[in-house]
This record gives sequence, structure tokens and C-alpha cells, in this order.
Amino acid sequence: MTKGQQTRRDIVEKAAPLFNKKGFEGTSLSDLMHATGLQKGGIYRHFSSKEQLAREAFDYSWSRAASKRLDGVDDSANAIDRLKKMISNFVELRSELVPGGCPLMNTAVEADDGNAALRSRAQKALHSWAGRLSSITQDGINHRQIRPGINPKKLSQLIIAILEGALLISRLQKDRQPLQDVRQHLDQYLEDHVRSKARRKESRR
Amino acid sequence: MTKGQQTRRDIVEKAAPLFNKKGFEGTSLSDLMHATGLQKGGIYRHFSSKEQLAREAFDYSWSRAASKRLDGVDDSANAIDRLKKMISNFVELRSELVPGGCPLMNTAVEADDGNAALRSRAQKALHSWAGRLSSITQDGINHRQIRPGINPKKLSQLIIAILEGALLISRLQKDRQPLQDVRQHLDQYLEDHVRSKARRKESRR
Repeated sequence: MTKGQQTRRDIVEKAAPLFNKKGFEGTSLSDLMHATGLQKGGIYRHFSSKEQLAREAFDYSWSRAASKRLDGVDDSANAIDRLKKMISNFVELRSELVPGGCPLMNTAVEADDGNAALRSRAQKALHSWAGRLSSITQDGINHRQIRPGINPKKLSQLIIAILEGALLISRLQKDRQPLQDVRQHLDQYLEDHVRSKARRKESRR
Repeated sequence: MTKGQQTRRDIVEKAAPLFNKKGFEGTSLSDLMHATGLQKGGIYRHFSSKEQLAREAFDYSWSRAASKRLDGVDDSANAIDRLKKMISNFVELRSELVPGGCPLMNTAVEADDGNAALRSRAQKALHSWAGRLSSITQDGINHRQIRPGINPKKLSQLIIAILEGALLISRLQKDRQPLQDVRQHLDQYLEDHVRSKARRKESRR
């Protein structure tokens, strides 16, 4: 990595928590100068606009979150256990993320009525998260670990909706309990309604 | 209402969609001047600061949303049907709200790391919504319409989390389907796990 590339990367890493906490509009050039220790020219030598920096900061924050959510997921051969692990990672591994909450929620809420480039970034992030949950679910159906009547897309949406909604409540109340409660709810739901009963009986033999 | 009071109310009504769409930071004085047709002095004659106007705009947006969610809820004697009506109102009556999505979500996301006065407003809004759902649930338990093991606070949180999370997805994808899907999920959940079975058998006799 050249020195220029390293500086560019440093700027993205330092800008990411600002954009994630304060939003695109709420983050000023002076915030960015203060966080990076650079002058305006030093920042804009590497990025054509605040928007370009915000897009790369989103990608950085999202890739941190997305990779944390996959921690240890592939250790399990059973699709239900893999879904539960993704849920538990979302709930438990928050302190290792870029500060400011879920970058998807933050960017979606700010950009749904505004910035098209950021909105498209958030859409792609949602699409990839839902895609991962869907493919685990489809794999579970194929291996008769998950009931064949389950719709992978709807199940993914439900999991994401519950987690994001509970995160909203948890952050507003500064209390982790709502996240813990929905994790328990989702685990129970996956066991009672999604895990293939046939398979469970087989494994008890 | 005096002319001054009327002007004040007009400013709040015109500012509310701006703050709800663009956020506190994203709404500029020139946006407010453009929307109200007033000069700076004309606005600040009625409000001590942009923050005071934003707080009143939030209260206005929230009161519209909160009252829509209660439409026809008290027409039903059964607590499960009242909960289902509140859920259906959230999903169906969106076009009559202040534009820009749920004011609670918008304000919570912007204010969770920032503005304390707006955050406290959003906390109160969440508290009152959850309180309403909880009191319907408790009433249902008292009248043996809802299973006695149900925790009113946790059920309220679950309903709010699912609805807010699905709204996030729906707004980002510009597609109402995720909201319709979770409505169906919640209705099924309320019937299968929350409605008192004893009571259902009785009513079939």
C-alpha cells in the first residue's frame, strides 16, 4: 500500500464513525478535518466530494458489520443453527462495530427521502444481508433441516425487520434488553415453526 | 385562535414534513423560509430556536401518527382484535401521515447519538405507543382474552420492533410488501400464541 493509499484509508476509517453517528448532512467539513487532523485540501486530494467519502465510509462501516455477523456461522452444519448464529452475532457483537448503530438503518433513514447514491448503497447492503439469510434458509430446505413450506425471502425479511426494529428501541432506550428479548423470540420461532419436525424426530432416534 | 397563534401553527405544519424527511441537521433555515414563505425574522418571532421548532414539529408529526394508529381501535371489545387493528392501522394508513416515514424512527436514528431534547421527545413517543399496546394486552389478560403467561411489555416491544423494522425495509425498497408480510406474521402470531385458547373454545360452543 502506498503512503497515499494509506492516508486515503485512514481518512475513511476516521470519517466512518462520524457519518454513522451524525449522518451525511450532520457531518461537517470541520468535523472531518478535526477527526482526520487534515486540512480541507488534504482530504479533497483523495476524494472528489463529501459524498464520495460518505459512500466509502458507508462501505467500510457496512463491511465491518457484515463480516461480524458471519463470525462462526459456517461452523455449524445445520441451517437453523446458522440462522441462530447470525442473529446472535447481531445482538452480541455490537461493541466491535463502527460506533453509531447499524450503518444500514442510519443510512436508510437519512437517504430514503434524499441522497440517491447513499440510498443505493443501503439498498445493496440490505440485499446482500437478506440474500445471505435466504441462501442459508434455502440450503436448509434442500437438506430437509427446514420445513419445505418456509419462504426464504419472507423469513429473511422477518429476521431483519425484528433485529433492526429492536436495535432502534435498544438504542433509543440505551438498554440492551429489547435486543435480547427479540433474540429469544426469534430462536423460539425458528425452533417451533421453521425447523423441520421430520428431521428432529429422525435425529432423536 | 389569534392571528399570531395561527401563524405559529402554520409554521409548525409546514416545517413538520421537512424535519421528518431531512432531519434536524438536514433542514436549513432557507428550507424553512421557502416552505413557510416567511423571512428569518418572521419564523424566529414565534420560536426561540430551530431546535424549539423541530421539537414542536416532531410533536405535531407524532400526534398525527399516534391518532391514526388508534382509528377504530376501540370499536372492538376483544383485546386481540384491538391489537390487530393497531397493527393494521400502522400498515394501511400511511398516506395520511406527515410525509417522510415514521417520525419516531427518523428522530430516534438522528438523535440517538446527538440532540438530547429531540431524543427525549422520541423516547416519550415510544413510551406512549408501547404503553398503549401494553394496556390493551393487560386488559386482554384480565378479561381472559389473552393467555395469562404473556408479558405485556415484551409483546408491545415485539410488535413495535417488527413494524418499525419492516417500515425501514419497505421505505428503502420503495415496496409495501414487507409491511404487508409482517402484518400477516403478527396476526398469525397473535392468533396462535397470544389469544387465549380457553376463550376461543368457549366462543365456539
